[in-house]
Amino acid sequence: MTISPANLNSALISPINKGLGPFDRDLTAAEIAALGWNLLREDLVLPAAVLYRDKLLSNQHWMRRFLDAYNVRFAPHGKTSMSPQLFQLQLDGGAWGITLATAHQVLAAYEHGVRRILMANQLVGRPNMAVLSRLLRDLQFEFYCLVDSAEIANHLGAFFSAENQQLNVLIELGVPNGRTGIRNDDQLADVLAALDRQPSLRLCGVEVYEGVLDNEPAIRQFLQHAVAVTRRLLSENRFAQKPILTGAGSAWFDIVAEEFTASFADPPRPATNSANSANSANSAASAVNIVLRPGCYLTHDAGNYQRAHERMCRSNPIARSLQPGLETALHLWAYVQSIPEPTRAIIGLGRRDAAFDSGLPVPALHFRPGSAHPGASAPQPAPTHWEVTKLMDQHAYLTIDPADDLHIGDMLAFDICHPCLTFDKWRTIPILDAEYSVIDIAQTFF
Amino acid sequence: MTISPANLNSALISPINKGLGPFDRDLTAAEIAALGWNLLREDLVLPAAVLYRDKLLSNQHWMRRFLDAYNVRFAPHGKTSMSPQLFQLQLDGGAWGITLATAHQVLAAYEHGVRRILMANQLVGRPNMAVLSRLLRDLQFEFYCLVDSAEIANHLGAFFSAENQQLNVLIELGVPNGRTGIRNDDQLADVLAALDRQPSLRLCGVEVYEGVLDNEPAIRQFLQHAVAVTRRLLSENRFAQKPILTGAGSAWFDIVAEEFTASFADPPRPATNSANSANSANSAASAVNIVLRPGCYLTHDAGNYQRAHERMCRSNPIARSLQPGLETALHLWAYVQSIPEPTRAIIGLGRRDAAFDSGLPVPALHFRPGSAHPGASAPQPAPTHWEVTKLMDQHAYLTIDPADDLHIGDMLAFDICHPCLTFDKWRTIPILDAEYSVIDIAQTFF
Repeated sequence: MTISPANLNSALISPINKGLGPFDRDLTAAEIAALGWNLLREDLVLPAAVLYRDKLLSNQHWMRRFLDAYNVRFAPHGKTSMSPQLFQLQLDGGAWGITLATAHQVLAAYEHGVRRILMANQLVGRPNMAVLSRLLRDLQFEFYCLVDSAEIANHLGAFFSAENQQLNVLIELGVPNGRTGIRNDDQLADVLAALDRQPSLRLCGVEVYEGVLDNEPAIRQFLQHAVAVTRRLLSENRFAQKPILTGAGSAWFDIVAEEFTASFADPPRPATNSANSANSANSAASAVNIVLRPGCYLTHDAGNYQRAHERMCRSNPIARSLQPGLETALHLWAYVQSIPEPTRAIIGLGRRDAAFDSGLPVPALHFRPGSAHPGASAPQPAPTHWEVTKLMDQHAYLTIDPADDLHIGDMLAFDICHPCLTFDKWRTIPILDAEYSVIDIAQTFF
Repeated sequence: MTISPANLNSALISPINKGLGPFDRDLTAAEIAALGWNLLREDLVLPAAVLYRDKLLSNQHWMRRFLDAYNVRFAPHGKTSMSPQLFQLQLDGGAWGITLATAHQVLAAYEHGVRRILMANQLVGRPNMAVLSRLLRDLQFEFYCLVDSAEIANHLGAFFSAENQQLNVLIELGVPNGRTGIRNDDQLADVLAALDRQPSLRLCGVEVYEGVLDNEPAIRQFLQHAVAVTRRLLSENRFAQKPILTGAGSAWFDIVAEEFTASFADPPRPATNSANSANSANSAASAVNIVLRPGCYLTHDAGNYQRAHERMCRSNPIARSLQPGLETALHLWAYVQSIPEPTRAIIGLGRRDAAFDSGLPVPALHFRPGSAHPGASAPQPAPTHWEVTKLMDQHAYLTIDPADDLHIGDMLAFDICHPCLTFDKWRTIPILDAEYSVIDIAQTFF
């Protein structure tokens, strides 16, 4: 398996990037992989973010079996990683498309070969519309974005009719005190009336982001509302095609799968281990195409998404049946830099390297470079009493016990608690095999 | 004045970057500037981060006059922006060197022409030392880093003696419950003994970061301790050269200037407006070279550093005498995307674009594109009751009044509350003139 899509194979990577080893001139990812770097041999300048290939693939396999059991389409959110290699990995694994959030993200994905994009956001502003207008000249490019007001429908309609183009839109439903999205029937009527006046806009479905809510009953109610609106618009022949019904961030996708398929598709089948299942269509009997959009599953984390996964495995029989569960596939490695007090180590890892908005990095592995150390052959699990208590721009405070065998120059791996805000700290992320050898470089385009 | 250093003039910028306008192939910053983009004419894909040239230069002029009044050297912290153009701007303005925090940052600065670097951090790990070893083969490159333990002195000494190279080190002093740095006399004795055994390490001075403390009396006491240690090491002839005494983040640099010059230099002179003052040497009578390191002054902010500046202007007579004071030179511009409730607007700006660890972005300017709007000719100050109450990955929640004249597609500028963690969200930042025209592109290398 190669992770790099063809159009990234020729992209050059500069030696002036964080978390790589030494090289003298711009090289391709394949050329870098051929340098034979190994993390444990201290070939990388730390701090470094790394991805573990085997865990990425395991997580991908988990999700494919989950989605196949529900027979729903998959457009994983790409804003998490903004890494074309990871987009391609997921498309190769049967994803229907990639979800993105901004015109810039759509451009970055398109330029790396993605040809079906659900922009789960409003497209606002003339230059942002112009980006999409240019891409839509490629008739192979399939694109959807959201409308939640008559005003934005009017802006989009005016722009794209002047360009003599059509734009696929989904109606976004929201909740009171939430983010974007239509709050009530009056707003919905306004949007529908505006769409009627804008022939350049094709209504193609209904979208929700349930993650603005924080409890399951409210989420189920919101999803049932989306189902009801979709049924109503179907009955009114409002859609220009078989409609998309889409929801699901990374925390509640099981609930979205349950609610949407309960209303519109066959009941779930037992999960299988088939690698050839085609995640490309709902049951022919279904009136809608259900599209789920979780993005963080691919690397998973040790924070909110780990807790969400535990909840899911308790309550959802499909999730529970899939073993192994999701595993963290992203680590940050850093050196112990100073142990100025018996209970405090300072680690060379900070807010410039790691997300800190959903919890601080969690020590996962300890490794002492060199052969003198008895455990040098493999990283050992970090003691559970090690805890990061503070993150500064370039430093982490680690609480330790005075008796711990920890030294300056030791290497530590950290789990992270929010993949999105970790990925955007790194432009190049080595992908490692099970022996910690670098087999590829994932680039990001934030 | 041109901001780009010579070695950036030929660097190519890809169209796949956030916050730029449209172009079809890689261009240099000068070629992009020649495209004639104007922010108010909607030539940039928002959200975008922009720098205002005139305010950068005003802030730089402010700092130069402040430092000249104290006759101290300046090595602004480059981790804030990691932008070679901004490094060069400050070096052209008389900075003695650039401060950085990691081996990767040093590499990025060196590769863009910086030849004197104070790494205000420990250098840990074989690959990180190897980066510096390679750079130090250039005899024009002057480099300092910190030691705060015998263990790290031994690591560095072993590595650089094997390379047959010498490494300049400063002793870092710390405070109890703080970050890195020597806590007590026993630790200091251990480090000095280790340095005596490592001929490849040249002791060149004493370093503190007072920003780990949060109140002025404790900071003054810590700085006086640094002075006392420096005096003692001077009396013991410990230094390999006229020593550097360095401190000062962006919040307390006035106090550092006061304490260090009170002990080691002439009393401050009244600030001047001279543009030709050479910020290159302390008084010949001084026994040490005092180096201050604030980095955030260049863009300033609307958060902690604004409050620090107000404190400074109340208590420090030099700071008070310098008018105008520091001004915010960095804005994030974004579109109003949705107004789903009468008191809530959703803005297309999020945690992927802005720092949020020291306060959320603050609405600064409001602009309605197009000529129909009476105030279209210039952005207007945002009403003071507009407030960002929540930042998600790609969205901001803005509290408004139902009577406000705010529409979808309006453009808003936001002040930010932590320059460092905003810069690292952007790879390319347009530099604007007073008419909001793009005159250069600052690149960053995080």
